[in-house]
Amino acid sequence: MNNNIRWLRDKIRVLDMQGIIISNPINVKYLTGIDAEGTFLITPKENIYITDGRYVEAVNNTLTINDEIVVFDMKDLSKDDYENFFLFCENVGFEEEYVTYAKYKKFMHTYKINNLQETEGIIEKQRMIKDPEEIEKISKACKLTDECFNHLKNYIKIGLTEKQIAKEIEEFYINNGADDVSFETIVASGKNSSLPHAIPTDKKIEPGDPITIDMGCKYKGYCSDMTRTIFAGFVPEEIKPIYELVLKNQKQAIDEMKEGANLKIISRMVENDFRLHGFDLIHALGHGVGLEIHELPYMSTKMDVYLKNNMVVTDEPGIYIPNKFGVRIEDTVWVNKGMATPLTRSDKDYVVVDEAK
Amino acid sequence: MNNNIRWLRDKIRVLDMQGIIISNPINVKYLTGIDAEGTFLITPKENIYITDGRYVEAVNNTLTINDEIVVFDMKDLSKDDYENFFLFCENVGFEEEYVTYAKYKKFMHTYKINNLQETEGIIEKQRMIKDPEEIEKISKACKLTDECFNHLKNYIKIGLTEKQIAKEIEEFYINNGADDVSFETIVASGKNSSLPHAIPTDKKIEPGDPITIDMGCKYKGYCSDMTRTIFAGFVPEEIKPIYELVLKNQKQAIDEMKEGANLKIISRMVENDFRLHGFDLIHALGHGVGLEIHELPYMSTKMDVYLKNNMVVTDEPGIYIPNKFGVRIEDTVWVNKGMATPLTRSDKDYVVVDEAK
Repeated sequence: MNNNIRWLRDKIRVLDMQGIIISNPINVKYLTGIDAEGTFLITPKENIYITDGRYVEAVNNTLTINDEIVVFDMKDLSKDDYENFFLFCENVGFEEEYVTYAKYKKFMHTYKINNLQETEGIIEKQRMIKDPEEIEKISKACKLTDECFNHLKNYIKIGLTEKQIAKEIEEFYINNGADDVSFETIVASGKNSSLPHAIPTDKKIEPGDPITIDMGCKYKGYCSDMTRTIFAGFVPEEIKPIYELVLKNQKQAIDEMKEGANLKIISRMVENDFRLHGFDLIHALGHGVGLEIHELPYMSTKMDVYLKNNMVVTDEPGIYIPNKFGVRIEDTVWVNKGMATPLTRSDKDYVVVDEAK
Repeated sequence: MNNNIRWLRDKIRVLDMQGIIISNPINVKYLTGIDAEGTFLITPKENIYITDGRYVEAVNNTLTINDEIVVFDMKDLSKDDYENFFLFCENVGFEEEYVTYAKYKKFMHTYKINNLQETEGIIEKQRMIKDPEEIEKISKACKLTDECFNHLKNYIKIGLTEKQIAKEIEEFYINNGADDVSFETIVASGKNSSLPHAIPTDKKIEPGDPITIDMGCKYKGYCSDMTRTIFAGFVPEEIKPIYELVLKNQKQAIDEMKEGANLKIISRMVENDFRLHGFDLIHALGHGVGLEIHELPYMSTKMDVYLKNNMVVTDEPGIYIPNKFGVRIEDTVWVNKGMATPLTRSDKDYVVVDEAK
């Protein structure tokens, strides 16, 4: 049995649960290494994975005897089998943040459980602290992102469309060993950069455009996330004070991202400085990164959470002037031996592509 | 107020609900045209969309006064505002198949609702019947798919990889006006075609390979879906009887897809004919297509559903011989004025690419 499952078994015992039903595929993957559709049960006696005919073979190929996980094809399980898994259990945990209300009712019925108990993100909280193998994979995903950004500095020219640039990013990742992008790449130029979540369009890059590029990839299942706002041809004077305000706050936040720091306080610091200059912090300052692109902990003015060693969190302040432009600068940051270590390291000073001669 | 919202308002009144909370973004898009993250409320007095700072601007740009939808930034709403939306409502509906258990409890608390009522896919069922505008968008997505297939007949050569072909399909779509592919394109050649859900690999096309291509795009949000099994160089004799059995059943099923036909009976018909020849129908015979690539109604031996005018459903029988080959033929079919009208119309007789001279 691996450390993650062992840890969870101990944890639920402390919480007076005799079993737990895990359905979120990311949590299943974290605990078991299995990448399929199915349900993972920790019962008093065993660790059980229930899947269907499409996955049984692949799952059995993933597991070894040391995993101590029994795999069932659901078509081989009777009503009694289901009801026996948690026989005599007083409390059985489930993932209330993932399981739909309809599924919750189905679990109660299928497994004949009296008290299905909320677990308050028990596994998501466990996932916040990365082990060395996880850090290595995230670091590699971040390195690929830096390399891709480096490539873009030469690739991006006035006249290319946002969509073409987004496609180039995705191809670079695939051709250089990433599994995939970790989210839909954002390339937002000119006015479009004023939308934090812009989708790449057929708009062509024009001289003087700010171009916000929010990009990341997955490497062996683990994500990276980085944003830079760069410029085509030259840096317009009106954008400079805002760029510098965002950059100053992005760097200050990194400096504060030490073991023991409170994420609410860091967010407040940025929010206050933005307000002092007449701007708002309209989205969270950051989020955890791991198997998911957005995971715990979130860094916002509402999250009273303290940073711990081996958390990986983004730092991404942004300012958006409606119908004009926006600037966002983001790094993926690892809390390592008490200190913040950025894992994405691309240039944050003004980057000007296709510079006017 | 548009017809969809009006219809839903009437429907919930009949079900003795005074309001409904809609959180599934596809359902929100269907009802409002809004493509963002937020919650849509139908309250006794108003239609309300609650979102956050990231989307307010984009949402307000989408809507007109005729939509009669009030947009709120959640940060401007107080506890009282939330509690007043459904004041004096006895029953308020929610989407139990989409909403998590945690969210369900949060709704009860935030909106102060006593009876949050399950709605059994009320909107998904409404979405089954397409209006003329929706049919037009699906038709256009299907037309692009036919054009893409036509292009492939000349493009595909022995020696190209499955991945190269999949990439060509995606580029064709993007370059010819589609929003995107509607699902990950399947290109499965030779033995790989025996896997119904194969992912394109670096395997090169070889002479005598069957090539199953399952492709579709989105046009203005609406999907198309088509599969053809074609051949490289020549059609191997051993595949012919199976190809003809699949094709015969695919055509017969289309003939049966009339208004009033029962989807279970059509599926049984295909299943029986396959069994008579020693094969199994291992997946559903079809599925609804619209804003989602897979939506209601499903056509399988378990679905006791009757076809209605303006449903759009795929017809996709397939036979898979493990480790040898597979054949699947699929069209997107519109039930129009009582009769089945295929919207994808590509050649279903043997298509041989890079034919030996």
